Amino acid sequence: VATYRLTIAYDGTDFRGWAKQPGKRTVQDELEGVLSRLFGEPVGLIVAGRTDAGVHASAQVASFSAEKQPPDALMRALNGMTPSDISVRTAEQVEEDFNARWAARSRRYRYRVETASVPDPFERDRAFWFPYPLERTALEACAAAVVGSHDFTAFTPTDTRHTHFRREILHASWSQESETILAFEVEADAFLRSMVRALVGTMLEVGTGRRVINDFESLLDGAARAEAGDTAPARGLYLIAVRY
Amino acid sequence: VATYRLTIAYDGTDFRGWAKQPGKRTVQDELEGVLSRLFGEPVGLIVAGRTDAGVHASAQVASFSAEKQPPDALMRALNGMTPSDISVRTAEQVEEDFNARWAARSRRYRYRVETASVPDPFERDRAFWFPYPLERTALEACAAAVVGSHDFTAFTPTDTRHTHFRREILHASWSQESETILAFEVEADAFLRSMVRALVGTMLEVGTGRRVINDFESLLDGAARAEAGDTAPARGLYLIAVRY
Repeated sequence: VATYRLTIAYDGTDFRGWAKQPGKRTVQDELEGVLSRLFGEPVGLIVAGRTDAGVHASAQVASFSAEKQPPDALMRALNGMTPSDISVRTAEQVEEDFNARWAARSRRYRYRVETASVPDPFERDRAFWFPYPLERTALEACAAAVVGSHDFTAFTPTDTRHTHFRREILHASWSQESETILAFEVEADAFLRSMVRALVGTMLEVGTGRRVINDFESLLDGAARAEAGDTAPARGLYLIAVRY
Repeated sequence: VATYRLTIAYDGTDFRGWAKQPGKRTVQDELEGVLSRLFGEPVGLIVAGRTDAGVHASAQVASFSAEKQPPDALMRALNGMTPSDISVRTAEQVEEDFNARWAARSRRYRYRVETASVPDPFERDRAFWFPYPLERTALEACAAAVVGSHDFTAFTPTDTRHTHFRREILHASWSQESETILAFEVEADAFLRSMVRALVGTMLEVGTGRRVINDFESLLDGAARAEAGDTAPARGLYLIAVRY
């Protein structure tokens, strides 16, 4: 028996998220199905970042234990069996007690906002179309405020399984990906459910001038969910890196 | 009554091509439906380049005549009514006898080949995954050979409505779009059906060394269809410009 670490990319559009759900198409179900067929026995995946329905990943990480195999052959076999909206980008054998969830030091997400006046059909499931004037300096002030240790209660649903709401943000910045795509990147030890999307939804209110930066800053110390802005749609969000 | 010219982008994945077909979802049907609802009477579109099922467009051009309206308001109304895989990028009033098909001086297409060893899920409907070593100089020699006036009989199905097979290629080149995407761009007065895809399929044979460049050149003078290579899949092809 050996333990493997996979790096996985998926287009989240046609999935009900990562985690198994009876009767729903999920990334975990698809991949565990392929692995179980390949090894001829049930294989369970441990994942670094459970993504919600419609959220994408360019470098999700998952681990599992199974019969020993050359990792390259394993990767080729997997890619021959996965549907076209999932790819296994790397496969490597790791220490037997490696756990993709608990060993992760940080997760990094990217949120893509399309600012064109007419939406690009090729971005329809891959970015949040937001054709309103945005003040870049205001967005950047929000990103700067987010960095550090804060209580993010205001940025996750009140109906929650989380028991503590403080997270350490290691990096947060806005950048211009292309003429029409503005992107927010954020890295933290861990995230609360929907946290990146609620942060983006609230930052966009600051960017359009509907909310002042001082108000945004005051939300970072355990304010109530109702105080913050809307949750931006899943289609703009990508899990882009997990660090170990 | 006035005549309008529209520039249109669409993701061809979920369409059976541009042209109307009973019971099939096509771009022409969707757009004519929207225009007819908007003007309260049947509106017919004349298009510059009839694209096949699965082929995309970033700048298709179509014209129509209808009741006079401010073009900006027309564009906004259209974009409020079209499905998310079609966008109207520009709308302008043109001379009354303008015809998007007959007035076009040239069409330009781009074909995207993904060369990564593992396919990117985000490119699955938008590029042709071809993970084999390609000789760039061989591809470039093919592109150079294509420029000029040739008989392209070898690059269109034998079951054809075309009556003459000579076309004038104004530009043809390969370029590296990104680390993993190689793109072929070609501009001509007009194209035969499937011509760009048959050219790409045959050039890729030269690029992998399965066919020599001299053989490719000999196909450009009215050779039979069976002499050339396979038709590359529709998903890599984009109509990117029409010049008037």
